[in-house]
Amino acid sequence: MTAIVYHYDVVVIGAGHAGTEAAAAAARLGAKTALLTTNLDTVGQMSCNPAIGGVAKGQIVREVDAMGGLMGEAIDATGIQFRMLNRRKGPAMHSPRAQADKRAYQSYIKAKIETQHNLDLRQETVEDIVTETVGDRERIVGVKVRGDAIYRASAVVLTTGTFLQAIMHVGTAQTAGGRGGEGTTSGISGALDRLGFEVERFKTGTPARLNARTIDYSNLEEQPGDDDPQAFSFLTDKLNVQQVPCHITYTNEAVHDLVRANLDRAPIYSGQISSTGPRYCPSIEDKVVRFADKSQHQLFLEPEGHHTQEVYVNGISTSLPRDVQDQMFKKIVGLENASIMRYGYAVEYDFCPPTQLWPHLEAKSTGGLFFAGQINGTTGYEEAAGQGLIAGANAALTVAGKPTWIPTRDQAYIGVLVDDLVTAGTDEPYRMFTSRAEYRLLLRQDNADRRLTGDADALGLITADRRERFATKLEHIDRAIAILKAARIDRAPGDVYLRRPEIDWSAMCALVPELSVIDKSAAEQVVHDVKYEGYISRQKLEVEKQHRLADKRIPTSFDYQKISALRNEAREKLSKVRPLSLDQAKRISGITPADIALVMAHLDH
Amino acid sequence: MTAIVYHYDVVVIGAGHAGTEAAAAAARLGAKTALLTTNLDTVGQMSCNPAIGGVAKGQIVREVDAMGGLMGEAIDATGIQFRMLNRRKGPAMHSPRAQADKRAYQSYIKAKIETQHNLDLRQETVEDIVTETVGDRERIVGVKVRGDAIYRASAVVLTTGTFLQAIMHVGTAQTAGGRGGEGTTSGISGALDRLGFEVERFKTGTPARLNARTIDYSNLEEQPGDDDPQAFSFLTDKLNVQQVPCHITYTNEAVHDLVRANLDRAPIYSGQISSTGPRYCPSIEDKVVRFADKSQHQLFLEPEGHHTQEVYVNGISTSLPRDVQDQMFKKIVGLENASIMRYGYAVEYDFCPPTQLWPHLEAKSTGGLFFAGQINGTTGYEEAAGQGLIAGANAALTVAGKPTWIPTRDQAYIGVLVDDLVTAGTDEPYRMFTSRAEYRLLLRQDNADRRLTGDADALGLITADRRERFATKLEHIDRAIAILKAARIDRAPGDVYLRRPEIDWSAMCALVPELSVIDKSAAEQVVHDVKYEGYISRQKLEVEKQHRLADKRIPTSFDYQKISALRNEAREKLSKVRPLSLDQAKRISGITPADIALVMAHLDH
Repeated sequence: MTAIVYHYDVVVIGAGHAGTEAAAAAARLGAKTALLTTNLDTVGQMSCNPAIGGVAKGQIVREVDAMGGLMGEAIDATGIQFRMLNRRKGPAMHSPRAQADKRAYQSYIKAKIETQHNLDLRQETVEDIVTETVGDRERIVGVKVRGDAIYRASAVVLTTGTFLQAIMHVGTAQTAGGRGGEGTTSGISGALDRLGFEVERFKTGTPARLNARTIDYSNLEEQPGDDDPQAFSFLTDKLNVQQVPCHITYTNEAVHDLVRANLDRAPIYSGQISSTGPRYCPSIEDKVVRFADKSQHQLFLEPEGHHTQEVYVNGISTSLPRDVQDQMFKKIVGLENASIMRYGYAVEYDFCPPTQLWPHLEAKSTGGLFFAGQINGTTGYEEAAGQGLIAGANAALTVAGKPTWIPTRDQAYIGVLVDDLVTAGTDEPYRMFTSRAEYRLLLRQDNADRRLTGDADALGLITADRRERFATKLEHIDRAIAILKAARIDRAPGDVYLRRPEIDWSAMCALVPELSVIDKSAAEQVVHDVKYEGYISRQKLEVEKQHRLADKRIPTSFDYQKISALRNEAREKLSKVRPLSLDQAKRISGITPADIALVMAHLDH
Repeated sequence: MTAIVYHYDVVVIGAGHAGTEAAAAAARLGAKTALLTTNLDTVGQMSCNPAIGGVAKGQIVREVDAMGGLMGEAIDATGIQFRMLNRRKGPAMHSPRAQADKRAYQSYIKAKIETQHNLDLRQETVEDIVTETVGDRERIVGVKVRGDAIYRASAVVLTTGTFLQAIMHVGTAQTAGGRGGEGTTSGISGALDRLGFEVERFKTGTPARLNARTIDYSNLEEQPGDDDPQAFSFLTDKLNVQQVPCHITYTNEAVHDLVRANLDRAPIYSGQISSTGPRYCPSIEDKVVRFADKSQHQLFLEPEGHHTQEVYVNGISTSLPRDVQDQMFKKIVGLENASIMRYGYAVEYDFCPPTQLWPHLEAKSTGGLFFAGQINGTTGYEEAAGQGLIAGANAALTVAGKPTWIPTRDQAYIGVLVDDLVTAGTDEPYRMFTSRAEYRLLLRQDNADRRLTGDADALGLITADRRERFATKLEHIDRAIAILKAARIDRAPGDVYLRRPEIDWSAMCALVPELSVIDKSAAEQVVHDVKYEGYISRQKLEVEKQHRLADKRIPTSFDYQKISALRNEAREKLSKVRPLSLDQAKRISGITPADIALVMAHLDH
């Protein structure tokens, strides 16, 4: 019997935050797309904390949304608490964050996928990746699934999350599997091995979930949502949300003593786990060791939804044995009688160092094979979603024979993310920070649409509704600037007057009533543009300089061996990364200005 | 290192329809209860069709509700279409049925469990059942879970569903696991084997799920919900439901030809599956073979929820290979372009023939070990829920040193169910039918509370709210009867006049305005009681006769060997089943009136 064959343009494997964005983006660009997952009930699942956004991450969500992605609308529809972080800092630091109703979020994402034109969501277990040899290079033919069937496609996007060769740890107890109650993904590991991919291992972890009914909130500090909750999506006019509070409690010396006394039973210290975890999301055992002088650590009790009692204990991720977890909570104020519903655990999984990819997230070795999310060594739902959108869009563009597209570092955090990954790789789970961006005053949460919606529209990623809204917003901005420039207050033009620190938009509207017709989101942009004009123009100048270097393209076939004057280290690194421009080459770790000068000289020949 | 020990009165393993009712019932009776499941995200999952109730099953749901169970309130809160089946037949046949929003149903059940006092819901993988030998009998000590911990308890309720040694089949493709994307339960099988339980195998199956977006509904017959949807729970005053329609389509000769041409690849005909499936839920391959003369079979397209496009195709369950499933739908009106989201499959699993249990669902061989649901050889969510409630309540009663309780055959379908199982066992998945009940005019859906709520209250299973509502309803019934008897219409007493076929309640209210204060549900009872009085009293007489036999108790230690006149077959069967009364003995298959007379004679000694 011959295998059954299904024909698609793009096949996406895995339906988490990367896979769903990838599939939806490919389908929006007109590619006939299949999204395959081993379990349809976990599409869009939040495996760790029930929250979206945060510092730098919130900006990424806004960018995903500005390009027509799913994450922003999903959290707007299903959030249960919204907060704008760093409100008192400058606008570059403003970062939206929201708690989600975990089940509702997941259902929302699944429904969006189910109703997406050009997209088939199917429960399948992928057993192999099928390629053919064209010249000296492998090319994607499709994937093989359980039940002797093949999905033929010119592009495949791999988003395996924590499921590649996954092992979960709770103390000495080890289980194969990438998430509580679920299995692992073995066929794909074999395929990556056969295709010659370098594979390394990371670990991540999650805390216990407690039953809210058994928590004593009476002495705990409450953390409410914002009074004026702000939406993530540029399409959301008004959030319709009944907000619930989180609560704050703390570890203490008794907890730390307990952890210290049991470090020999902690997989990350006993030698049972040797792979690296996310530095900025340390487990409690990690915190106790690395910050030995701290007498307490803050814990956030985050409800997992309106209709569940499950509470995520943010800040106490652990793979300590169950008896230590049992005792730990008994020593924490409010949690003395808390009933653990799920124990915390660590999970080790395979990822493929992302220097094996081109910037548009296609594998250098295997044409048509794209990677996104944790398989690229990142951590975080938002980082996964951003990569998913880029990988899915480029898969569809490639299939259609169109040029690939990625945002630049001065255009989006997603540009920074992708460039960092493919240029420098990562030796620990990569998380986005505002400090990773050179031009963070340009990459604000409020202007993500101005940075990306135009490009996304040109690619075909967005709907007419979004296009019109965006055009209206630009009109409002132009009109506001015109009104400001024409106005005179104390003999100063309106835009100059607005620069005064004590003057905000409502003060301006009182002085110049014509401004009151300007839409709120347009006004926010105008205020930032005007008040930070000096800084912004300086950053733009730098960007231009950078672009001149970026415009110096290096052909992918460029032979670094022929530059005899190049140091061995530089020759090796440049040959491995194969940067697409002098700008990218410059960012490879260990590459010096002298190396760059040599390459430039040879390019000019 | 010694194992960690948790102390409970009752431990329930498995959180499906049986396990959740068992755990909630035990907790309501005051037992400190733990409900353990391998995956907290699948608590109360509807693994097969997204519907509750139906003929005889709807009556069971009303009974579960009358005893304070979860199922009725859950479907009332999350139903998306309600229909009272057999409305044109007599009241014994009226059966409520509803389509559920599958995710919402599951979340509702989970939330109820999470908020139940005395009950801890915990994600755990059970690895073994721990017993000790007391005299010549094993007794439950508790269960061992992954991570070297023991839950000590005096009673354990096993509800393993289809997960015991489960194998899923799609054509020749076989996978270990009890449900798509999930694993199997191995430790428990070893324990049952060690404890000497007889284990047999059944199979069941499920159809494909389609994407509603790809179905052409334009030529399909619509099946709407009732205009006056009726609630399942006696606590629900009014359903707050936005009903959605189902649709009807049909198989045809082309489909049947395709199935026939591929029978050699159908696991149930190729010899790959040898175990028995549910007779009244045949797969399409079964239908084509067994009803070869039928040129079509009706299919119901049942939406799985308000927020999903997944559609359950009721009537076409199958384990045929995927290519046959692909082609099958292309030949069915409306489904020509339907996208399959999940393929249909069959699953084989272990069950323990239920003649190994006492009527209160405790194992004869192992004190404190209770069984409920599919492990007893039944099929259906409702049958599972009914047994779960009985097993959980008796587990708690046993732990508290109180007498066990089960409803009698004339009191509840659940009584019929339990008695059939433990007395006769089953050689195919057992499903409830009205025809299984001798006194079905007594076992109506409308009077489930009058049959059971009093007993449930005496046990401590219900809340004060339910007690008060029930008392009010009884008052209304008494008052209505009194008003009727006092009224004179055409010189006939009101109750006699009401017996006329053309007279319904609203007609009576017009004639006797005092009746209009009577609550609707009370009025329904009165109408049925009055109109069917003749039949009902005749059935009650029979019941009394039966009770005289049932009152003839047989000690569990009774030695049938000493009745030398007893036929060998009778001696063997009676020794195996160990009936608790002559009435139960009489129902054992192959036991004759002469055998009963002999036993009775020896009892009278």
